Amino acid sequence: MENGLKNILIKNVSYYIDGNLNIHQNCDILIEQKTKILKDEEINLKKNNLKESMADESIANESNVNITFGKSLIEKKNLNKSDIKIIDGKRKCAIPGLYNAHTHIPMTLLRGISDDMALNDWLNKKIWPNEAKLTKEDVYTGSLIGCLEMLRFGVTTFNEMYFFSEEIVTATKEVGLKAQVSYPIMDFGTPDEKNLDRLLNSAKKFVKNNINEKNILPGIAPHAPYTCSEETYIECKEISIENNINLHTHVSETRYEVVELENKINMRPIDYLEKIGVLNEKLNAAHCVWITKDEAKKLSKNNVKILHCPTSNMKLASGGVMPAMELLNNGANISLGTDGPASNNNLDIIREMKTASLLHKSHRWDPTVLNIDTALKMGINSESIGFKNNDIVLLDLNSPHFIPINNIKSNIVYCANGNDVDTVIVDGKILLENKTYKLREAFINTTYKKACKITEKFN
Amino acid sequence: MENGLKNILIKNVSYYIDGNLNIHQNCDILIEQKTKILKDEEINLKKNNLKESMADESIANESNVNITFGKSLIEKKNLNKSDIKIIDGKRKCAIPGLYNAHTHIPMTLLRGISDDMALNDWLNKKIWPNEAKLTKEDVYTGSLIGCLEMLRFGVTTFNEMYFFSEEIVTATKEVGLKAQVSYPIMDFGTPDEKNLDRLLNSAKKFVKNNINEKNILPGIAPHAPYTCSEETYIECKEISIENNINLHTHVSETRYEVVELENKINMRPIDYLEKIGVLNEKLNAAHCVWITKDEAKKLSKNNVKILHCPTSNMKLASGGVMPAMELLNNGANISLGTDGPASNNNLDIIREMKTASLLHKSHRWDPTVLNIDTALKMGINSESIGFKNNDIVLLDLNSPHFIPINNIKSNIVYCANGNDVDTVIVDGKILLENKTYKLREAFINTTYKKACKITEKFN
Repeated sequence: MENGLKNILIKNVSYYIDGNLNIHQNCDILIEQKTKILKDEEINLKKNNLKESMADESIANESNVNITFGKSLIEKKNLNKSDIKIIDGKRKCAIPGLYNAHTHIPMTLLRGISDDMALNDWLNKKIWPNEAKLTKEDVYTGSLIGCLEMLRFGVTTFNEMYFFSEEIVTATKEVGLKAQVSYPIMDFGTPDEKNLDRLLNSAKKFVKNNINEKNILPGIAPHAPYTCSEETYIECKEISIENNINLHTHVSETRYEVVELENKINMRPIDYLEKIGVLNEKLNAAHCVWITKDEAKKLSKNNVKILHCPTSNMKLASGGVMPAMELLNNGANISLGTDGPASNNNLDIIREMKTASLLHKSHRWDPTVLNIDTALKMGINSESIGFKNNDIVLLDLNSPHFIPINNIKSNIVYCANGNDVDTVIVDGKILLENKTYKLREAFINTTYKKACKITEKFN
Repeated sequence: MENGLKNILIKNVSYYIDGNLNIHQNCDILIEQKTKILKDEEINLKKNNLKESMADESIANESNVNITFGKSLIEKKNLNKSDIKIIDGKRKCAIPGLYNAHTHIPMTLLRGISDDMALNDWLNKKIWPNEAKLTKEDVYTGSLIGCLEMLRFGVTTFNEMYFFSEEIVTATKEVGLKAQVSYPIMDFGTPDEKNLDRLLNSAKKFVKNNINEKNILPGIAPHAPYTCSEETYIECKEISIENNINLHTHVSETRYEVVELENKINMRPIDYLEKIGVLNEKLNAAHCVWITKDEAKKLSKNNVKILHCPTSNMKLASGGVMPAMELLNNGANISLGTDGPASNNNLDIIREMKTASLLHKSHRWDPTVLNIDTALKMGINSESIGFKNNDIVLLDLNSPHFIPINNIKSNIVYCANGNDVDTVIVDGKILLENKTYKLREAFINTTYKKACKITEKFN
């Protein structure tokens, strides 16, 4: 193997739920490094071609690994045991890598600083004043904490939006996860840069710097229609088209912002996004709580990627419930996000699957909606933004809350939590094994200490 | 120590949240066996006195242990290190034992057998036909699984209602937990006994058999107003009064049952329970979803113990939301329950605290309701049914989802899950340490295997 990684065989795994949610029992899973690894020049050539053709694919789709499964693969494929890393799959369940579709991971630092508060107080008294104190180095530390938490919980890919984006990229690469990191834009500036023009220029630079990263997709993130003008959205759209990258934004999270826009321009947010030409498959739209049936149809028809954050919406209590069934019945593409840890307060997508299911069942007075398969699909949907989900997460089934197994998928969605994750393999690389990080313990402890130190300046 | 147990010192615990929810940092916790252990005759004498005085106290209030905390207790109390078991409290948070206020633990066996189904189909097609196949031995095995799961998740005390109650008692004692086990009564009988008179007699026998158990409170459980006649409720009331035990029932879980009762007797369920004389401090009322403001006042005024099951109510989607704020504003005593694992699907009270908070915030469009302290109180409320909560649960804080700690109580309610429990001490006895059971591994594995085997007869 050119990259020095061994092939991995997960031997006799009790259950394997594949990307199509089919269940396979007592089989081996072989994760092979592809023999031909693209050289840097080849990757760049490919990227340039992509950029010109504007194909709806990304270089991140290029995967180094190939996953196959079946019975007794060692014998069938005549594998040399000393060449492969063997993991015991007994009493374990393999699932694809989990995907956190909308988050702000440096906000781990603000976890628990402002619970049980009204949204305005939450933002004005706690979040914004303390965010203003964060340095680049702080954001890097907070990002490491977020990546470590997601890795522990089997989240291999996340969709991020926060200032000091370069620091987030660095932390993500350090821990070994995959991410779309979108550079945030607000008309009144961000801690990155107060002047809007310079901020947009920094965004372009950030995209350029990261467009060739293998496991990082840069994106552009006009924050929301109430913080970005039409001109700003159009500038962001151009950056998105020019670089063939996604445009990530908040939309219709609260009733207030919808009414405000209607009062200002006599249009609802989704119609507005359609008018300015960003309502397409490149749009990553977070929240979509306060939308009409007509807006739900438009989002679905245009293949917008909808990022649903049930816990955050419930905890901030901005009212209403995203019309999941109206969206799904129109074929919408929905993924689950935790939102930032200041409004969740963790990054556990397994839990988010259950919460989503409970919220919509309860809201609709209908236990059949948002069923097990729907929740699972929403939790592993990293391919929706251009990644290849060839990651494997092993859950440890050797615990009474998984006994008995009448329906393994039910046990994952309705019984499991992030701590049940035992092993995480990203792109053929083992990052967590037996619930233990492969990273140096000293590095982890130092990171924890740094994060705790940062909170001393909060009030 | 007469009972052979060592005193326990938790040394330098990072955080200790006591029963009044006060936070103590970096202190020792000393769990001492009381030097004077009551002899059997003394216990019986005390019980008989209690019965006659009808005092609102139970023998379970007699605790063998005494908990104190402070800095450097070894030195201050001049303790002999070789006489005590020392547990390292570094990077741990101690909380009181968690309490599962309403559950049917043998239904672990039916976990995942019937998700995402309408209530009627759930009951008629899946739950009842398969429950009918359960033997006493099966119920014992299912109860062991439930107790093991609760122990793993820091639940030291639970409030149970299911047929073959003696088996549940046996399993609870085997694992070492505390429980109120209420004998279920239905007019058309239960698998215990089809004839109502004989069923009531069995109930009396069950109460008599268990009234002297130290960590078991027997109770009587007329199932619900739609399965028990007025006469049955009154017979149960008499058993409750005669033995000074609680009466545990389901009430106003679905809109259907409320309307049905109104059509039949022109009364709402809480008014009905008041009329027949059971609306008092001995009543354990599960669900209370479909109640009016007036009913909420009555429940509160009469000091009824309200057992709230947010996950189960949401998952079964029987509609509506328990009016938690109307109850709390009237001073109601509310505790959290998981309900049976067939409608949850686990027994994790830490998770239930967050779900309760999210549900009511979201329902009321108000993030300030059901705040951290309220959720915590509801999760450790075993004293409401007559137990002394002198159990200690240690949570392992050495995980990124607890970093940083801006507010330890927030981290417990909004970030933690059952798997974060590290050590469980019930009545001065360590039942779980370093996330490992003190029970024999072979016993646990055999129990798992038996539980899986039982599911083969389900359809």
